[in-house]
Amino acid sequence: MNDVSVITDRDNALFEAGIKLGALYHQFTGSPVNLKTVKSLEHAIEQSISVQPFVEDITVSINRDMIRLSLNNKFGYCELGGRMLDVRITVRYGSKSVQVALVFNEEAEYPLMRIITVE
Amino acid sequence: MNDVSVITDRDNALFEAGIKLGALYHQFTGSPVNLKTVKSLEHAIEQSISVQPFVEDITVSINRDMIRLSLNNKFGYCELGGRMLDVRITVRYGSKSVQVALVFNEEAEYPLMRIITVE
Amino acid sequence: MNDVSVITDRDNALFEAGIKLGALYHQFTGSPVNLKTVKSLEHAIEQSISVQPFVEDITVSINRDMIRLSLNNKFGYCELGGRMLDVRITVRYGSKSVQVALVFNEEAEYPLMRIITVE
Amino acid sequence: MNDVSVITDRDNALFEAGIKLGALYHQFTGSPVNLKTVKSLEHAIEQSISVQPFVEDITVSINRDMIRLSLNNKFGYCELGGRMLDVRITVRYGSKSVQVALVFNEEAEYPLMRIITVE
Repeated sequence: MNDVSVITDRDNALFEAGIKLGALYHQFTGSPVNLKTVKSLEHAIEQSISVQPFVEDITVSINRDMIRLSLNNKFGYCELGGRMLDVRITVRYGSKSVQVALVFNEEAEYPLMRIITVE
Repeated sequence: MNDVSVITDRDNALFEAGIKLGALYHQFTGSPVNLKTVKSLEHAIEQSISVQPFVEDITVSINRDMIRLSLNNKFGYCELGGRMLDVRITVRYGSKSVQVALVFNEEAEYPLMRIITVE
Repeated sequence: MNDVSVITDRDNALFEAGIKLGALYHQFTGSPVNLKTVKSLEHAIEQSISVQPFVEDITVSINRDMIRLSLNNKFGYCELGGRMLDVRITVRYGSKSVQVALVFNEEAEYPLMRIITVE
Repeated sequence: MNDVSVITDRDNALFEAGIKLGALYHQFTGSPVNLKTVKSLEHAIEQSISVQPFVEDITVSINRDMIRLSLNNKFGYCELGGRMLDVRITVRYGSKSVQVALVFNEEAEYPLMRIITVE
């Protein structure tokens, strides 16, 4: 067997971390939100994703300034957009712990998911 | 103009109430949940849908017994299923207020949305 | 019994029509899309919502110009946004048929759902 | 700098592959479906996820037998459930190509996402 095909704890930790960010993003973006309700949404997202396998820690922060700019003038709310999200997740798989993040990248105008550290 | 084509406050109130239930259902079902996190999810769903136009009141209750039965043995969580939801929404449009509900119907084995009252 | 509490076919038709638009919106917005894949997404949304109770007809059109404007420069795709959607649904409940629509309203900068006709 | 903190193409390929599976799952489960519409949903899911960064190949197969068992007796449709999905995705990041899968695991009664190969 070629050793490149051995799947390590590091591999699985990163794979699992990616799953969590993809899941969070596509489960919760689109949720109606305004400045009064944003805190409960942050909390619920953290709690919800925290129950998934291998999640050790998660913090979710939704950008209030972006909400303010996105509020519909007539109706006073907006939808949770991916660019509003700042998420940090720590996933542990066996011996390995990884930290990943979702942060809006202004240059690419893109809510970028990336690996922060592998330990 | 035929008078059946006149759209009334009653019409709009019921239409808007339907929108809210459909939105709630398809936005939040699938969310990972267990007995420790269910309260924050209920709260966030109530808060989220409450910001939508014409919503006067909303209560969301997630069935703990169904969560218990649905928990994955290995991983200790499940997904929010439509059948776990008991939702009551009051929508006001102009002069009319309507109450609608989403309740699991055991006979039809279906999470049934229906009109409760029109006032 | 006060006759305002009698729920009519018209009431249920409008309520059900609202459900479909709310469901469609929150199920499918957020889907990754570009100009090559938009047709399959339109088709799948039409097919998916058509299986729900009381739906007689549905057309879904996604605005190509808005996709073009929303494409990420680096990655060449965007997410399906509510404002890209033009949806027409006919719902029949008993003796009543209603047509409803989701169309982006430029003045309100809002993807507006409204009742078109009741027959 | 400790070399465990160097993020490799292999790391990123697996992280990106996880993102795609998590995104697919939470974007599309819950979609109304029956045996007549399942093919269009499979096709749209494949097309949608294929536009995301680093996806080289994707096949989505929805289990017809599970749809048949899940169809509501009264209304003749069901929701796309995670356990109905068989998904294979190939992601390339730089020099590395990985294959991952989502397959229902009967023993764990769980729609399991896992790494198949790393090349």
